[in-house]
Amino acid sequence: MKTIILIGANGKMGQAALSGLGKHKVITAGRSAADYDFQVDITSEESLRKLYKEVGHFDAVVNTVGVCEYANFTEMTEEQWMTTIMSKMMGQINLVRIGQEYIADKGSFTLITGILNTKPIPFAIADATTSGAIDTFVKCVAFEMPRGIRINSINPTVLEEAWDVYGEMMPGFEPVPGRLVGKAFERSVDGFITGQVLFVDAY
Amino acid sequence: MKTIILIGANGKMGQAALSGLGKHKVITAGRSAADYDFQVDITSEESLRKLYKEVGHFDAVVNTVGVCEYANFTEMTEEQWMTTIMSKMMGQINLVRIGQEYIADKGSFTLITGILNTKPIPFAIADATTSGAIDTFVKCVAFEMPRGIRINSINPTVLEEAWDVYGEMMPGFEPVPGRLVGKAFERSVDGFITGQVLFVDAY
Repeated sequence: MKTIILIGANGKMGQAALSGLGKHKVITAGRSAADYDFQVDITSEESLRKLYKEVGHFDAVVNTVGVCEYANFTEMTEEQWMTTIMSKMMGQINLVRIGQEYIADKGSFTLITGILNTKPIPFAIADATTSGAIDTFVKCVAFEMPRGIRINSINPTVLEEAWDVYGEMMPGFEPVPGRLVGKAFERSVDGFITGQVLFVDAY
Repeated sequence: MKTIILIGANGKMGQAALSGLGKHKVITAGRSAADYDFQVDITSEESLRKLYKEVGHFDAVVNTVGVCEYANFTEMTEEQWMTTIMSKMMGQINLVRIGQEYIADKGSFTLITGILNTKPIPFAIADATTSGAIDTFVKCVAFEMPRGIRINSINPTVLEEAWDVYGEMMPGFEPVPGRLVGKAFERSVDGFITGQVLFVDAY
């Protein structure tokens, strides 16, 4: 049994991840202290360091959060770009950068990206670009992780559980059940793979 | 004949690009006012806007610059990450974001990335990650560029002309001549392709 820090457990993606991590001890973390075992803001280096110190021993970090701004490219401001970059991209990089100091030997990091970097749709250029950055980061940084630490990203299409919210924006997409995405998280955490982008898509 | 703004013309990559743009009117821009037709700092929105306004009519923007910091991942600071992100990534995005307001109908943007996002080497994680971001950006944003404007990125391996500087860090890599990379810039500027990453590699 591993001790896993799951960031964003109460979100739809967090619930999907949780469905694949049932055999482990899962410590939850998120923005609101009331809803989780620990409070964390991934855009703050200090907050991340505090989380890792307070948890103590852990074998895996699974992230399911990252703020993205959505707009047409010609209308997206630098501020909207930077909000997305500082959360979904730099936030996740910092989560690994700082976390590798604290995680157990042979631990693993599992980051979250999303299918829009390979299947673009309107308004999602910042989401797509930062997903591309994190998928690339994972593929390249795996070679230099110390102490047998592994790293992967999960790149899912929209969840069935979120289709009522996003379906209208995504004509021709086919959602996948959260439990299938949970399998990808499980394969990352419990497998021996590293440097992999695990796409979960219907076609 | 097109009017092309070439950013970083005096660098080795700039010279490579220039070799493919000989039939056009090339306006040069770069950090030092003394060396170029126009001064520009791609990390400054103001500086970019000033450049485009001063040049007036132009049909293409070709960028060959972007600052990257190099370090082992476990030693790279957030500041080093941000320097790289703000120049190579956000700088190039801003170059397009602001430039699309000024460029001629059916104009084109050609950005620069680099082979390390598909062939990782030590110390280059920030370079690789931001190259992955820009290659993804180009592939996705092409679908929403207005007025027939095209966008591509050139993703070359190391240049023969720079092999004396970088060769030692890149065992097993085979450099390519600048004139071959120039062909890729020419194909981007003078072709009809868009949303493409033009890899220039020896194997």
